Amino acid sequence: MILTVTLNAALDLTYRLPRLRPHAEHRVPPAVERPGGKGLNVARVLASLGHETVATGFAGGATGDTVRALLAETSVTDEFVRITGPTRRTVAVVDDEPAGDATQLNEIGPDVTPAEWAAFDDRYAHLLRDARAVALCGSLPPGVPVGAYAHLVRAARARRVPVLLDTSGEPLRRGIAARPDVVKPNAAELAALTGATDPLRAAVAARRRGAHAVAASLGPDGMLALTPDGAWHATPPKPLPGNPTGAGDSAVAGLLSGWVEGLAWPERLARAVALSAATVAAPAAGEYDAAVYEKLLGQVRVDQL
Amino acid sequence: MILTVTLNAALDLTYRLPRLRPHAEHRVPPAVERPGGKGLNVARVLASLGHETVATGFAGGATGDTVRALLAETSVTDEFVRITGPTRRTVAVVDDEPAGDATQLNEIGPDVTPAEWAAFDDRYAHLLRDARAVALCGSLPPGVPVGAYAHLVRAARARRVPVLLDTSGEPLRRGIAARPDVVKPNAAELAALTGATDPLRAAVAARRRGAHAVAASLGPDGMLALTPDGAWHATPPKPLPGNPTGAGDSAVAGLLSGWVEGLAWPERLARAVALSAATVAAPAAGEYDAAVYEKLLGQVRVDQL
Repeated sequence: MILTVTLNAALDLTYRLPRLRPHAEHRVPPAVERPGGKGLNVARVLASLGHETVATGFAGGATGDTVRALLAETSVTDEFVRITGPTRRTVAVVDDEPAGDATQLNEIGPDVTPAEWAAFDDRYAHLLRDARAVALCGSLPPGVPVGAYAHLVRAARARRVPVLLDTSGEPLRRGIAARPDVVKPNAAELAALTGATDPLRAAVAARRRGAHAVAASLGPDGMLALTPDGAWHATPPKPLPGNPTGAGDSAVAGLLSGWVEGLAWPERLARAVALSAATVAAPAAGEYDAAVYEKLLGQVRVDQL
Repeated sequence: MILTVTLNAALDLTYRLPRLRPHAEHRVPPAVERPGGKGLNVARVLASLGHETVATGFAGGATGDTVRALLAETSVTDEFVRITGPTRRTVAVVDDEPAGDATQLNEIGPDVTPAEWAAFDDRYAHLLRDARAVALCGSLPPGVPVGAYAHLVRAARARRVPVLLDTSGEPLRRGIAARPDVVKPNAAELAALTGATDPLRAAVAARRRGAHAVAASLGPDGMLALTPDGAWHATPPKPLPGNPTGAGDSAVAGLLSGWVEGLAWPERLARAVALSAATVAAPAAGEYDAAVYEKLLGQVRVDQL
């Protein structure tokens, strides 16, 4: 199975309305509820691709129960560790502003106690035994040490389980030094990590910091990968209009599924870029359009650098 | 006991942040959760005043469970009827804009089936037996007949239980024709009901539509009451700065508690206006400041008209 880790899972609530007006009252249909956090998005896409997928992390409170109930409707296996603090919510308000992103309120997450972090560590070590690959995704909730990802990367590598890290800021800075097999920053995260704004120069600098491979998602420009096997740039056939939420998570699912299926880097990248574009094209945030994916897969251009 | 009815209860989520920027991402502390809906606000204030209070209405889903768990932390007795549809959420975003109201997203509420509405009607009839007064408050969820309040007013009056109605729009229009003992509109609701913008003329017109008494909340101008015993205007000593959320619900609690304690109308109005002002002055929306209430109670001016 493929293991995904979501330490700061969320109950994602999405509201749609014609226009968000600050300081006004809006009558709205019920929120669309989804299990959220980057690792859970990755898990759902892996499961849709037919991979046996296990999701772990922390879940607590009524919001955590709702996240797990929603997860039970998918084929992802729930191995979340129960905590006392309530799982955070994210609130997205999507309006009809043509070029506008959603207005997002992202709660910072629950306090995790040292005992809960230790319980997670045990669960993770146990789950690694059967894992063919592991994805570590998203932000850290308060209470989890900032070096958490570095620790989890080392544990995976000690068991020779390929490990992909997708986070930002200080957790990325520390995690990358533990030599993950792949990091998947976007252009802004890569620039913040390395100080270089050119993605290629930044990717070179990120490899120097410890990552064996860097696969950077560049939005409509596809994906740039610097790996021990070579360097490539994968480009979708044309930019698709739509909602980019979750596109990076679908790319992670593409990279990891390709890895465990034994695909070479160029084919992994083609899959990641096609899944990413099919996610932008899907009507619901964080879902992907399977027909668009199948169609785009043969149309992604992969250039060796 | 005093019975409060909240057919469209809510899980109120409040976020505080420096400034809400449409189409931007905001990192926020966890939402403050409160049991919401006007009838539940009334029930909490009645309980704080020392009255035995029973709350009924509909509750469903994980959000309904959370509302009931929060209610269990108070001394209000929970007689909610379980339904399949989930209890709605309201999201309030409070920012530092000095004169600005909160930005509100109010979900419309769950679908209530005819069988659920019938089950509520049985529960309500049963609870009326021990009720010394009843408050019918707030909007109707989808599926409940628009004449619901008219029906509930008639049932209370058939049992000689004093009934106060606090709603708006078509449910108010229909409910008032069933001759409730009191309606408590605000100035805008009164104008929408009667077409008259002057509160006194509008209150006269509202009585003509069926209400035995009209107690209109006029914000910082206090309360105007036209009753079978006379007409009064109650004015707080000075406008207090603060958050007006729930001020009208505190006024309802003041009127009803005064009624069952056998106070005359001028004293009921003084209590309603003092509680309302003490709610505006409280730091949390929908709570009231007990010290401010005690202090203001003797300072409310009640003029006979």
